[in-house]
Amino acid sequence: MPFRLDLSMDVLRRSPATLDALLRGVDQFWARGTEGPDTFSPFDVVGHLIDGEETDWIPRARIILTRGPDRRFEPYDRFRHRKRNAGRALESLLAEFAKLRTANLELLGSWKLTDAELELQGEHPAFGQVTLRQLLATWVAHDLGHLAQIARVMAKQYRSEVGPWVPYLPVLTDHETPRS
Amino acid sequence: MPFRLDLSMDVLRRSPATLDALLRGVDQFWARGTEGPDTFSPFDVVGHLIDGEETDWIPRARIILTRGPDRRFEPYDRFRHRKRNAGRALESLLAEFAKLRTANLELLGSWKLTDAELELQGEHPAFGQVTLRQLLATWVAHDLGHLAQIARVMAKQYRSEVGPWVPYLPVLTDHETPRS
Repeated sequence: MPFRLDLSMDVLRRSPATLDALLRGVDQFWARGTEGPDTFSPFDVVGHLIDGEETDWIPRARIILTRGPDRRFEPYDRFRHRKRNAGRALESLLAEFAKLRTANLELLGSWKLTDAELELQGEHPAFGQVTLRQLLATWVAHDLGHLAQIARVMAKQYRSEVGPWVPYLPVLTDHETPRS
Repeated sequence: MPFRLDLSMDVLRRSPATLDALLRGVDQFWARGTEGPDTFSPFDVVGHLIDGEETDWIPRARIILTRGPDRRFEPYDRFRHRKRNAGRALESLLAEFAKLRTANLELLGSWKLTDAELELQGEHPAFGQVTLRQLLATWVAHDLGHLAQIARVMAKQYRSEVGPWVPYLPVLTDHETPRS
């Protein structure tokens, strides 16, 4: 199995700088464009990543590591960020995400997780037993999935601008029906 | 129509730093993973972006701006990078891409394109007449599409690691049949 904690943390550590390079200071046209009604803009995605830092990954890892009798995770609110970040600037969200991520990785590193601990289980409210290893792998894939989403949403702002190139740019027709 | 040259150049200017933040120094596991046979790894994608700087966007813009009798573009070799970059390190490709992109944006800026020039046409070998504006919009969407691809390919390296979370991470099942 390819999971490695160090390689996972390396990717997680890169996300704030990657998002900064892509988004800090961009025009609202790029920051606030979406794929259609009820889909996320890049601004929304950064807010959603902040929610993950505060309510998902580390809190769930703690539930697992506590080894208590009830290891059921809190359901994750995918729209918490909407109210929370109303009126804020993207730059403020990027800074907040970077700060939270740094602190969370410091904490994760301080746990010095063993292979046995990575196999400890928690209970997902929808699909049941999951291991800490699966939770941490999901954190990585979730970051990358949302980076792909931001790039896709930005690309789609130019869908009508590329003219006959549309069939050569699959990113413009990915997720025509929102998948997440 | 939403095309703006300044906002387009802003996105194009960000790509080298974004790719650096995401990829410089990553393990081969992330740099060389693919989505299956005959698909691109992140290393391949950076090579493909370099090919675009050398053979696609600016050369095609020049053909259009020359206003000659033959404005047909050279076909674009999507696999030029394979031989060209054999044995090289990802870090060397990232540096080369950044250098080429900086020079190309300097050149593009120096042209001080007018709205009339953006409407000049060239001839794409597959689908015929296209405007300079469409070419430049495609350059932007192409960058973002390949950034999305890199993130997706990296995420898929953990597809078997996330366990029951697969249906919650659409990035893991996007492009199961390669689309580009």
